[in-house]
Amino acid sequence: MGQPWYESISDEMAAVDEAMAKALQSNEPKLKEMCEYMVATGGKKIRPAVCILSHLACGGARNKREVINVGAAFEIIHSATLIHDDINDQGELRRGRKALYRQYSISRSIITGDFMFAMGFRLLGRSSSAIVDFVVEASAAMGESEFIQKDFEHTPRVTEADYIEIIRGKTAMPIVAAAKSGAYLSGADHDTIEAIGDYALDVGLAFQIIDDTLDIVGDTEKTGKRIGVDLIEGKPTLPVIYAMRHPVYGDRIRSVFSRDGTSQDDVEEVIGLMKKTDAVERCREKAYGYADRAISYLSVLEDSVYKDALVDLANYVVRRDR
Amino acid sequence: MGQPWYESISDEMAAVDEAMAKALQSNEPKLKEMCEYMVATGGKKIRPAVCILSHLACGGARNKREVINVGAAFEIIHSATLIHDDINDQGELRRGRKALYRQYSISRSIITGDFMFAMGFRLLGRSSSAIVDFVVEASAAMGESEFIQKDFEHTPRVTEADYIEIIRGKTAMPIVAAAKSGAYLSGADHDTIEAIGDYALDVGLAFQIIDDTLDIVGDTEKTGKRIGVDLIEGKPTLPVIYAMRHPVYGDRIRSVFSRDGTSQDDVEEVIGLMKKTDAVERCREKAYGYADRAISYLSVLEDSVYKDALVDLANYVVRRDR
Repeated sequence: MGQPWYESISDEMAAVDEAMAKALQSNEPKLKEMCEYMVATGGKKIRPAVCILSHLACGGARNKREVINVGAAFEIIHSATLIHDDINDQGELRRGRKALYRQYSISRSIITGDFMFAMGFRLLGRSSSAIVDFVVEASAAMGESEFIQKDFEHTPRVTEADYIEIIRGKTAMPIVAAAKSGAYLSGADHDTIEAIGDYALDVGLAFQIIDDTLDIVGDTEKTGKRIGVDLIEGKPTLPVIYAMRHPVYGDRIRSVFSRDGTSQDDVEEVIGLMKKTDAVERCREKAYGYADRAISYLSVLEDSVYKDALVDLANYVVRRDR
Repeated sequence: MGQPWYESISDEMAAVDEAMAKALQSNEPKLKEMCEYMVATGGKKIRPAVCILSHLACGGARNKREVINVGAAFEIIHSATLIHDDINDQGELRRGRKALYRQYSISRSIITGDFMFAMGFRLLGRSSSAIVDFVVEASAAMGESEFIQKDFEHTPRVTEADYIEIIRGKTAMPIVAAAKSGAYLSGADHDTIEAIGDYALDVGLAFQIIDDTLDIVGDTEKTGKRIGVDLIEGKPTLPVIYAMRHPVYGDRIRSVFSRDGTSQDDVEEVIGLMKKTDAVERCREKAYGYADRAISYLSVLEDSVYKDALVDLANYVVRRDR
């Protein structure tokens, strides 16, 4: 990966890859192939990294099998979610390759997602019930926020507060669960686990805000996703919410956002207009604010290379272009 | 339900309904409504019944909270599977009502299924890891057999052995997991748990064979499903496998089964031809055989009202018309 926060845990992250491959074995060749397609597409693996770094930064032992399995479980469950998300959003590209359902079929992809959920829960089920609870709380929040997001599709009245509620459940809660699980497995006390959870919540919010700016100003070569897809689907994102309030271009942006079935020309026009506003810059400022607050929560931890890595991770999340 | 096997555990089955409703609470009104839609449509609740009866027949205590939660978890996970199955198979009716994705939308239904999976695993995660392993083994088998089934769609060379392999994973394994979980929670020894598992495997096979005959000779008013849908989708079912070997009508049945995009007229014609063969009767004989063998495995158990109910359940499964 080459990220600074990655170096201190490169052994553990390699072990996560192995644990994922092992957990996704199947006698059915096509099912195995589809799982491998998802795992091979890589991704940033933020969830296992946060899980393992939180564990080590709270004084946990290195290369502990349980933490590695839990980290792998988070990534497997996350991948399962992405499979179903891409079907729901008619996504074309994922991590620079065709979305699974486009490479294979919708029905096989739904089943593969379910299989990966089950295999992820299997890895978790061998851990304590506290960890299962962290994950399930996150899964409930994810499902609920996907519903809230749907309620606000193509709906210009969506507010920044609505948006934060959506991305809190959709993106931040699974990262919180990963962080708390890692801290819990180190034997950290309640206050430390909560502080690590607060860190992860803000990292998650910052991550998603930057993700949403990359839908406007990203480079497909780097992000592995097409530009403007959130806009086409009428997904409420923070840059769009800000831009819809612009005194000059707001009317036109609202009008396109409201419409179901936006053309490629409209999308390009709106992206052009949005770039003339300060929407993306304001989003970045917001994300920097969350990243800074995330880092402040780490003050409860003793200094270590892993604490430094958590700081690096928060900074990476807001400065990335992919 | 009014089934004889139901009476001895009516308290526990009512508690299962309550546990399901409690497990599927959500702050998101639409998500809650969609879960309730699935739960309210009832169903035969074979999995929780087998779980609880196996538990009691092996000497377990009545109204034990853990068994009820595990039974509820099996039914929730089963319902989640049905939601996704109906999307995959473009099913119209489920338990006499519109399939969830037709009443709401595909994307919301995929999310609801995922939410129900997570809530089901939550209930299981509070049990021992042995039970999680039973369930996960079943989930893996389900996913794999769905893939094998797809490989044989519209493929007349499918054999009875292929079919048994498919329904073993798709239908029987989750019932085995429910039965073994119930027995395990009673503290039964390994041999008894395996015998209960063997019982459940044959009950599951018998159940699915009868289900597949009802696609040909069932009454929509009773089954809550349209007739001939498996045929339209080219799903390999035992009555079709038998009928395709018929010396006179086999050619025509194979030709329609091979075709993607069968018309309603073709389906009605083929159902008419199949009724002229002994395919359905042979399937019933086969199912009776499995039910008898299932009952024979129960000889390891001491006599009790619950053992009698397991016998009744095996007999019900092959004699039902709904």
